[in-house]
Amino acid sequence: MGKIDFQGLRDFISKTGDNHVEDLKIFLRQPSVSARGEGVEECAHMLANFMEKAGFNVEIWRIDKANPVVYGEVYGSRSKTLLMYGHYDVQPPEPLDKWDKPPFEAAEVECGKILARGASDSKGNVMAIVKAAELYNAFNFNLPLNLRVIFEGEEEIGSPNLPKYIEAYRKRLKADAAVCFDGGLDYKGRPAISLGLKGILSVELRCRTAKTDGHSSLAPLIENPAWRLIEVLKSLKDEGGRILIEGWYDDVKVPTEEDIRLLEEISGEDHERSIEELKKHFGVENLLGNVKGLEAVKKLMFEPTCNIAGLCSGYVGPGSKTVLPSEAYAKIDFRLVYDQDPSELFEKLKMHMETGGFKDIEVKLLSILEPSKTPASAPIVKAVKMAAEGTYGVKPQVAPMSPGSGPDYLFTKRLGVHSVWTGCAPPFSNAHAPNEFITREAFLNGILYASSIMEHFASI
Amino acid sequence: MGKIDFQGLRDFISKTGDNHVEDLKIFLRQPSVSARGEGVEECAHMLANFMEKAGFNVEIWRIDKANPVVYGEVYGSRSKTLLMYGHYDVQPPEPLDKWDKPPFEAAEVECGKILARGASDSKGNVMAIVKAAELYNAFNFNLPLNLRVIFEGEEEIGSPNLPKYIEAYRKRLKADAAVCFDGGLDYKGRPAISLGLKGILSVELRCRTAKTDGHSSLAPLIENPAWRLIEVLKSLKDEGGRILIEGWYDDVKVPTEEDIRLLEEISGEDHERSIEELKKHFGVENLLGNVKGLEAVKKLMFEPTCNIAGLCSGYVGPGSKTVLPSEAYAKIDFRLVYDQDPSELFEKLKMHMETGGFKDIEVKLLSILEPSKTPASAPIVKAVKMAAEGTYGVKPQVAPMSPGSGPDYLFTKRLGVHSVWTGCAPPFSNAHAPNEFITREAFLNGILYASSIMEHFASI
Repeated sequence: MGKIDFQGLRDFISKTGDNHVEDLKIFLRQPSVSARGEGVEECAHMLANFMEKAGFNVEIWRIDKANPVVYGEVYGSRSKTLLMYGHYDVQPPEPLDKWDKPPFEAAEVECGKILARGASDSKGNVMAIVKAAELYNAFNFNLPLNLRVIFEGEEEIGSPNLPKYIEAYRKRLKADAAVCFDGGLDYKGRPAISLGLKGILSVELRCRTAKTDGHSSLAPLIENPAWRLIEVLKSLKDEGGRILIEGWYDDVKVPTEEDIRLLEEISGEDHERSIEELKKHFGVENLLGNVKGLEAVKKLMFEPTCNIAGLCSGYVGPGSKTVLPSEAYAKIDFRLVYDQDPSELFEKLKMHMETGGFKDIEVKLLSILEPSKTPASAPIVKAVKMAAEGTYGVKPQVAPMSPGSGPDYLFTKRLGVHSVWTGCAPPFSNAHAPNEFITREAFLNGILYASSIMEHFASI
Repeated sequence: MGKIDFQGLRDFISKTGDNHVEDLKIFLRQPSVSARGEGVEECAHMLANFMEKAGFNVEIWRIDKANPVVYGEVYGSRSKTLLMYGHYDVQPPEPLDKWDKPPFEAAEVECGKILARGASDSKGNVMAIVKAAELYNAFNFNLPLNLRVIFEGEEEIGSPNLPKYIEAYRKRLKADAAVCFDGGLDYKGRPAISLGLKGILSVELRCRTAKTDGHSSLAPLIENPAWRLIEVLKSLKDEGGRILIEGWYDDVKVPTEEDIRLLEEISGEDHERSIEELKKHFGVENLLGNVKGLEAVKKLMFEPTCNIAGLCSGYVGPGSKTVLPSEAYAKIDFRLVYDQDPSELFEKLKMHMETGGFKDIEVKLLSILEPSKTPASAPIVKAVKMAAEGTYGVKPQVAPMSPGSGPDYLFTKRLGVHSVWTGCAPPFSNAHAPNEFITREAFLNGILYASSIMEHFASI
């Protein structure tokens, strides 16, 4: 394989496909539920074994009591190095009664669909990378570049320890670019490529007004923490959604002209369709601000938000209880856009409490993910786009930004390399929901997609 | 006993005290937890037996599936009729590990203290009434008046069916006055007498913005019900505590000159003390509005309130979850003063939602108790005051209003008689809390107090 032979690669993957799918099923049958630690260790070891068989030098990294990171490297024929990220942990499978087959049976049903928790998010992606490397090993060819892979076991609980791993092993992770292989195809089966992610600042605001709950007849005299919390919350955001904390928007740099250009490259029909799907799924007639189509997509991608994820005080069971609560709390997540810094904004939030008359409110930091962004002109973006088109025969959908958040910033900001999010999960694959699946076809295409990314990045 | 002989009565109670206390203990050992129906039937039958033994004609009334009301009557030597109310149900005893003795053992510990759930609230009161009638029976004397007693089994869950009982049996309940014997002594051991109760309107406000929870990255587009609920709540009350619903204060008639006069009859020291106890119990430095002493007592008694008893939306467990909730709800209790009508105010609340732009909010009625008031000049007030002073040797504390709520209005408004709240529970008796108790002395004094009330009311 001096020059890449896509058809040969495709044929070979197709011919050997059954073996790859069998290995994927074995991998899917091993639970790895990070939320409760179920099977995580066993899964890390199984993955390490698959990687060794594929020709990787493998290490299992451990820091404190964090779930292990499975690291692998293969030295290729050229000096360029690509870092690929994935995660081997999965969401809890509950509710179990909503599954057509047990979630860790990896049963194959109609049309090559394999049902399993983690099938599309993200063990199919992880195994596609491993199998891509294995192909070269089987051919007895060198990879076209040096490949480093890092598979974490805590993505589904917010990657709390990945920053520490990246910091501790930064020298081992040197690369020319990164690909986070944890995505999939859009509703039309086109690979989705995202050049950025929103950041997140997650906090808890807690208000305590008395040392014990009281009888609600005392309401004229003892302050109610729920009312107090409402005052605080009202001070954070106006009815239009604008965040009222001083300096919150100072560093907002998006959307840039490039962001707008990228969005306009996607057809109006696609924007309409994605927004209509969203409305249908949630059963809502109108979106906030009555936005539609492209306008709605822009808002989704580029608007910083202040979301109440949880709110609690007093008695919340059936019927009534005449209680004056002593405590109230809210869990808030702020989604951040480029170039907002969650640590700085946390300080601004604390300052808001200090100067706004809310010194009595306890502000607790729950989690942080920085926003991340890679320019459309980056070589890895070109490589991934070419690989996508070559593999799937259609133009990929390139989004300047994902409305979600993830550890992408560890690659772009901590390691200083360009990074792209993509992957091979099939459309509507029920990630985080019952009957999650991957198809044989999507998985085998994923192997080709991963190999192609390496080939194209190597030759740019 | 042509003329009342207090000393004779007191001596007789003292001499026969052990038997009365043993009966009380038997009564206390029978659980009657209305919140979960535990032992309620058995307790009603036991109470009926004690009453028959005491000379009552007893009936167990039943309506639908409500807990039974135990009714009794004794015809006395004069034509005046007194109605006495009490409740035989108790609060749940949990947390069990905080009790020094099991809550249904009725163990006697130091100083004649009998520990049991319901000891002070309100089986001691109920048994004191029964025993007062039994004394006359034992003496072979007629009661000085006709006595009707009504003991309900749902007071601790808000007396939801008592209005139906009162309506269905109103002819049987004819009386010249009522005494709700469900109170006790103040911190100095003086009987507390209350001439009125606040009303209550308890509602649930519920907001649903989507048919399913979403990922919090969708916050720019899908409305968050918690934010919406906060808008609604903010529209109900200003920061000073004033309720913003149109017409809310139209019928507020208190405090009257008489109310103020009654409050001023209580010493400043007593007001200070009760407020200081409150602050200490709740560990608060300042009360709402920075009120103190008499001013605080006035606020407590006469201010209509809008209390958030419960608030819930989204994820409220440990750590964070990036969820956009689809539903949020609040449980609100409005305390009402004389002459506010909870049914009318519920209509005003609905109108507020209708015209204030909150048509999307579901408003559910949870419960209603009307406010109630009896003039200080009423004969029953005089009788109870004399009985209190005679029994305890101190001037009773007469409050124009209790900040709590209860079914008092059924007597004053539905049956059209004056009604007074009082009782014999000892000070700091841990009602609704672990280690609830009554003392031998408090119980035996209660028998005397109940008899004296009958004697004085008969002879006024």
